[in-house]
Amino acid sequence: MKWAVLVGGKGSNLQALLDHSLEVGLVISHREGVGALQVAEAHGLAHTTILPGAFGSRAEYGQALRDALERTHIEAIALAGFMRWLDGETVAAWSGKIFNIHPSLLPAFGGMNAVGQALAHGVRWTGVTIHLVDEGEDSGPIVAQVPVPVLGDDTEESLSERIHRIEHQIYGPVLKAFEAESFGVHGRRVIWRHDIEGFEGGRYAVGIDQCDR
Amino acid sequence: MKWAVLVGGKGSNLQALLDHSLEVGLVISHREGVGALQVAEAHGLAHTTILPGAFGSRAEYGQALRDALERTHIEAIALAGFMRWLDGETVAAWSGKIFNIHPSLLPAFGGMNAVGQALAHGVRWTGVTIHLVDEGEDSGPIVAQVPVPVLGDDTEESLSERIHRIEHQIYGPVLKAFEAESFGVHGRRVIWRHDIEGFEGGRYAVGIDQCDR
Repeated sequence: MKWAVLVGGKGSNLQALLDHSLEVGLVISHREGVGALQVAEAHGLAHTTILPGAFGSRAEYGQALRDALERTHIEAIALAGFMRWLDGETVAAWSGKIFNIHPSLLPAFGGMNAVGQALAHGVRWTGVTIHLVDEGEDSGPIVAQVPVPVLGDDTEESLSERIHRIEHQIYGPVLKAFEAESFGVHGRRVIWRHDIEGFEGGRYAVGIDQCDR
Repeated sequence: MKWAVLVGGKGSNLQALLDHSLEVGLVISHREGVGALQVAEAHGLAHTTILPGAFGSRAEYGQALRDALERTHIEAIALAGFMRWLDGETVAAWSGKIFNIHPSLLPAFGGMNAVGQALAHGVRWTGVTIHLVDEGEDSGPIVAQVPVPVLGDDTEESLSERIHRIEHQIYGPVLKAFEAESFGVHGRRVIWRHDIEGFEGGRYAVGIDQCDR
């Protein structure tokens, strides 16, 4: 399955997806000069930067994205540090085939700076969520979640790092599970038909901090 | 420390608190004829029913609660199936000494029917939260949290049962830890000074489903 990865940051999730043998046909960044573009370059991947500021509306930006995605015959899309909402037409065009990874246990702490939000709220657990993308913000059906402990001496940096490490572990395997039709979507509920290594019904089950400790 | 337990349901959390040797000086129910009153009766505990409907405002209801609590020289308060908000004056009178247990990982799924909300949203994990009570709904500082997996074939009944089992395990030990001053509150963040058995920094660490499986 030919994926586009939509990026905007350092590119560590893109790198992790490549490490998990995802076939990446196109990398699109919404920001210039980010690390993710260097990762794409280093792997010889087709890549382009499409700046939202260059378009008058979200719909026009969406049209530019779709043009690039269609030209490359992209079958599915993974958001990885891409900080823009997709317009309805783009979501509809790849309906059920667009994924995002978010650094919290959604629906808690959606939107920007989820790690800072969790720390400020004083939760004992936050986590990572992989979900299907709809037109809302972090609101689509949830495919997989991993709880991550918030430690007493955690800073935004230390907690972010622990969360990113788990993101890198799980995003690739879950997208490969999508390719293998290991789960199906029924309304808001995602039903896992067969588990992949380390997961049980979309819950990461082994090798995770809270169980190792 | 002399506790009041505010109830409104079957009384299984009240029973669990007694099993953990909490000194319960008074049981107050907001509903007549509930199982929790029978539990109080069976243990020879002082108990009373104060019906919200008998009062014209939340403030007057609060006054009636405070009268009962003060008469019995109650030092701290545990909500267990008590489905009414406390008024500001009552919260202020036992500030930092009123606890609630809620069947979700707050701030996700606050309010009524947290288990049903979690199932409808399709999360892979929900949980249990013990928090201090303020004037908001399920909004006070979080003391302890335990993630609980949502299984593919879970019904509201099966998931509720698994969540209740964990509630019964953790509420008593956490309230005893409060008596022992094992944690302190700094703004919204609760800092654990020393851990109690099974817990690490307010995160239940051992013997929990997701690690046993």
